[in-house]
Amino acid sequence: MYTLSENCPRREICAFNGKGTVQIKDLTDKEGLYNHGRMFAHVTIQPGCSIGYHDHNHETEFYYILKGEAVFNDNGKEVIFRAGDIGATGYGQGHGIENRSDEPVEMIALIVSEA
Amino acid sequence: MYTLSENCPRREICAFNGKGTVQIKDLTDKEGLYNHGRMFAHVTIQPGCSIGYHDHNHETEFYYILKGEAVFNDNGKEVIFRAGDIGATGYGQGHGIENRSDEPVEMIALIVSEA
Repeated sequence: MYTLSENCPRREICAFNGKGTVQIKDLTDKEGLYNHGRMFAHVTIQPGCSIGYHDHNHETEFYYILKGEAVFNDNGKEVIFRAGDIGATGYGQGHGIENRSDEPVEMIALIVSEA
Repeated sequence: MYTLSENCPRREICAFNGKGTVQIKDLTDKEGLYNHGRMFAHVTIQPGCSIGYHDHNHETEFYYILKGEAVFNDNGKEVIFRAGDIGATGYGQGHGIENRSDEPVEMIALIVSEA
């Protein structure tokens, strides 16, 4: 089964009290992940925008950077993330990500559940 | 926890009797997916190379195209895939993907298990 890009569902949210909004293109749903996860998406963070800091318990969220440069908050420590870098946040740790650059940041976000 | 791109493990394989080889950059391992999956990777298919046709039972594999143009075999039907298109193959169905273009194809491959 395939879905062409233009037919993927899109949404725009303010994420965890982050700055501005982020654009989310969902690549599947919970059922598509056999309920072992709750997100597999292509996320775009425009300049000046962010996903606010939040924790993950009993699940892990991966941020895999596709384009741009972002400031990744890895459980309290800021790291510069560029295309190809990946962050894995679970086991009660927290993360956030902010675009302080002049170009959009694009990434894959994947949430996998422990149960 | 984060991993910079240059530190991600890389491997190169001939996949399911495909043409040539494909380059795989693993973004996590089975444990990172709580054993609910067995692959989350950035895959590069060079011109003239392919991943041969194969089935997925009790698991689903997603191919999400990041760059280039590929011929996706969706359970026997060929479809042109470009950046942003996604294929989901599970429930006993099969897939393969071939790069018949002059530029590399890059994609995210994710395998999630039913159990």
